[in-house]
Amino acid sequence: MRASTYPLVDPAEAAELVLERTPVLPVEEVSLAAGWGRVLAEDLVAPSQLPPFPASAVDGYAVRAADGAGRLRVAGESAAGRPFEGALPEGAAARILTGGVLPVGADTVVMVEDVVEDGDSVVVPEGFPAGRNFHRPGSDLRQGELVLRRGEALGAAELGLAAALGFPRLSVRRRPRVALMSTGDELVEVGQEPGPGQIVDSNRWALLAALREAGTEVTVLGLAPDRPEALREMVVGVLAEHDVLVTSGGVSVGTHDLVKPLLESLGEVHVGRVKLKPGKPFTFATLGGGGLAFGLPGFPVSSLVTFEVFVRPSLRKMQGFAQPQRPRLPVRLGYEARPSADRTEYQRVTLIREGGELVARSTGSQSSSRLMSLAGAHALVPVPPGPQGISAGTIVEALILSLPG
Amino acid sequence: MRASTYPLVDPAEAAELVLERTPVLPVEEVSLAAGWGRVLAEDLVAPSQLPPFPASAVDGYAVRAADGAGRLRVAGESAAGRPFEGALPEGAAARILTGGVLPVGADTVVMVEDVVEDGDSVVVPEGFPAGRNFHRPGSDLRQGELVLRRGEALGAAELGLAAALGFPRLSVRRRPRVALMSTGDELVEVGQEPGPGQIVDSNRWALLAALREAGTEVTVLGLAPDRPEALREMVVGVLAEHDVLVTSGGVSVGTHDLVKPLLESLGEVHVGRVKLKPGKPFTFATLGGGGLAFGLPGFPVSSLVTFEVFVRPSLRKMQGFAQPQRPRLPVRLGYEARPSADRTEYQRVTLIREGGELVARSTGSQSSSRLMSLAGAHALVPVPPGPQGISAGTIVEALILSLPG
Repeated sequence: MRASTYPLVDPAEAAELVLERTPVLPVEEVSLAAGWGRVLAEDLVAPSQLPPFPASAVDGYAVRAADGAGRLRVAGESAAGRPFEGALPEGAAARILTGGVLPVGADTVVMVEDVVEDGDSVVVPEGFPAGRNFHRPGSDLRQGELVLRRGEALGAAELGLAAALGFPRLSVRRRPRVALMSTGDELVEVGQEPGPGQIVDSNRWALLAALREAGTEVTVLGLAPDRPEALREMVVGVLAEHDVLVTSGGVSVGTHDLVKPLLESLGEVHVGRVKLKPGKPFTFATLGGGGLAFGLPGFPVSSLVTFEVFVRPSLRKMQGFAQPQRPRLPVRLGYEARPSADRTEYQRVTLIREGGELVARSTGSQSSSRLMSLAGAHALVPVPPGPQGISAGTIVEALILSLPG
Repeated sequence: MRASTYPLVDPAEAAELVLERTPVLPVEEVSLAAGWGRVLAEDLVAPSQLPPFPASAVDGYAVRAADGAGRLRVAGESAAGRPFEGALPEGAAARILTGGVLPVGADTVVMVEDVVEDGDSVVVPEGFPAGRNFHRPGSDLRQGELVLRRGEALGAAELGLAAALGFPRLSVRRRPRVALMSTGDELVEVGQEPGPGQIVDSNRWALLAALREAGTEVTVLGLAPDRPEALREMVVGVLAEHDVLVTSGGVSVGTHDLVKPLLESLGEVHVGRVKLKPGKPFTFATLGGGGLAFGLPGFPVSSLVTFEVFVRPSLRKMQGFAQPQRPRLPVRLGYEARPSADRTEYQRVTLIREGGELVARSTGSQSSSRLMSLAGAHALVPVPPGPQGISAGTIVEALILSLPG
């Protein structure tokens, strides 16, 4: 057993290094039904204008404003999808339904609430100038207008827009394929009774959820064998079909740690330790075949915090997100943040609204094995190393995981 | 054609009425792999303590603090999953790896970086009191402690906790099953060339994405037939297998509107119009079989805004979320918000960070057909009706859809 010889890297530098080495994945076409959460790979330009015709915004009567107030003959109807045929004669009105085409010659729509219907005629009151209650062609979108930018995530409105413009399929970035593996001779499967010195493999389930939230497709490899050659074979066998290998455990300095030597043999280890608490043994490597490998520490909080700080931004960059980072917001520290002597600590906090502010409260003991410090946490607050810490009441920038209800 | 006789309901009252009529769905068991995003149906209590044994936090040597500084014989090893057998003799140390069990008799761990290894012995320096570098049994979680509350959403940390405590399956609320239908004779399928007066059915794709984001399972019924009896048959045929019917279009007052009469015939219409802009024709009904029906307006923005205001909170309540609403944050209005005369308007805004504040900018024309007003929008700002509007620079509460990067 000997102390690690990997240099201790500043976490901001390590995060930057990871992003620099992260490729953006290839483009693929998906249907609108499969588009939610995907990221556009190219700008979307309107091939035609919206609406394509003057469309009534209400149910009522299409008239010529020049005819003025008074009784008008009802000459027909313009329902949605069944336009009024021909031009609207002078002195006449056309019944029009929401979404119906404004007949040629008509230049305004009077709402049904505002008229008096009387058999085959309708009485229109004073004060209805041209241009009311309909959407002009091109008023929502002009032909050739830039609708959505490359790098924008596809949500409900974006997919609706793509459909309205007649795109049944969209070019998006492929989702990362991730192989997930847990290492550690102490691990047993959930549902098994742990023997002496054994614990349940919980990281698999936590990381599986985190990977799905990040938009990836995951292959769960399960518990890794504890013999270097068997482990190597298992990993080599799946690398070709995956973009990323994520392991947890086995990256500390002990004699039984297998992951760092494995990654050294498969490619290049760029980061082997970081000045981060929790998460010091975090390991990042590029692999010979072009993939990335993240060796996360075995303690549950360490694995999830290093996932947030290093892995998730990388996975989001792969998918083409213009902004792969979690959003940040200023929050007021509701507690005295004690620092680590030599590492940046990502403290887990809940947020509550107090007046116009978000106030951060500690989730309690920040031990690297205490998952309760992350359960229900809304944010991570980076506390720099050194003697000072951060006083209660200070405004700090927090990485937002979710907002309080 | 006649004006609607449904009373115009205040949107806050309508939203409350919808939630009051919304049932919480039954409980089902899911595996940890299927748990992400689900909501716990019962409190989770720790059946045992965590960690279950004193576990080393580092790689190093387990010693008896009373032995003090000096040379100690290395009596064996405690690796993760392979504990040291028996008690640690006085004057001896055990090599210990991260996660390994502290041997009986040992009361502190000295990091490998801090010792000098010398063949079968190790030299420990001064200053290592008892209690260092290991996690005490129960220090993360005591037996019987409340771990997760009913109504909490299952994310990475929560699923990791459940696994660590040995729960391979969890009781959660069933996801809502939603039947989605578009009505309107003017609609054609995306990919088809619209004829005169026709437009592409875009709401289907927007609402499908919104429903998935809300955590539901969706059956897409597609375009509804325009004959009342055929429509009725189609809907009746699927109600038994669904908790919710969502329609778009066909809820205005025109002679061709089919949805309100259909819902009247299938149950009770509680809301037929709301003082909301956009979205006045929003319709809510309870159905004879116990399901809910939401008749959303046909204009794309109206359908998505009424989805956010009325439907999404209902779907989240069904799933058991303790807080079914979107989070709210104070934002500074970066524009002059002009009001509607008689309806609350949900204006769509983007947010940008300016110093410590979020500043809301209008997404441009707020026309009910202009989906561009929702594309990329981060929030909705409710602007009350009346003559005043809201001055630029005012702090308002915004419904947050997403945060800016």
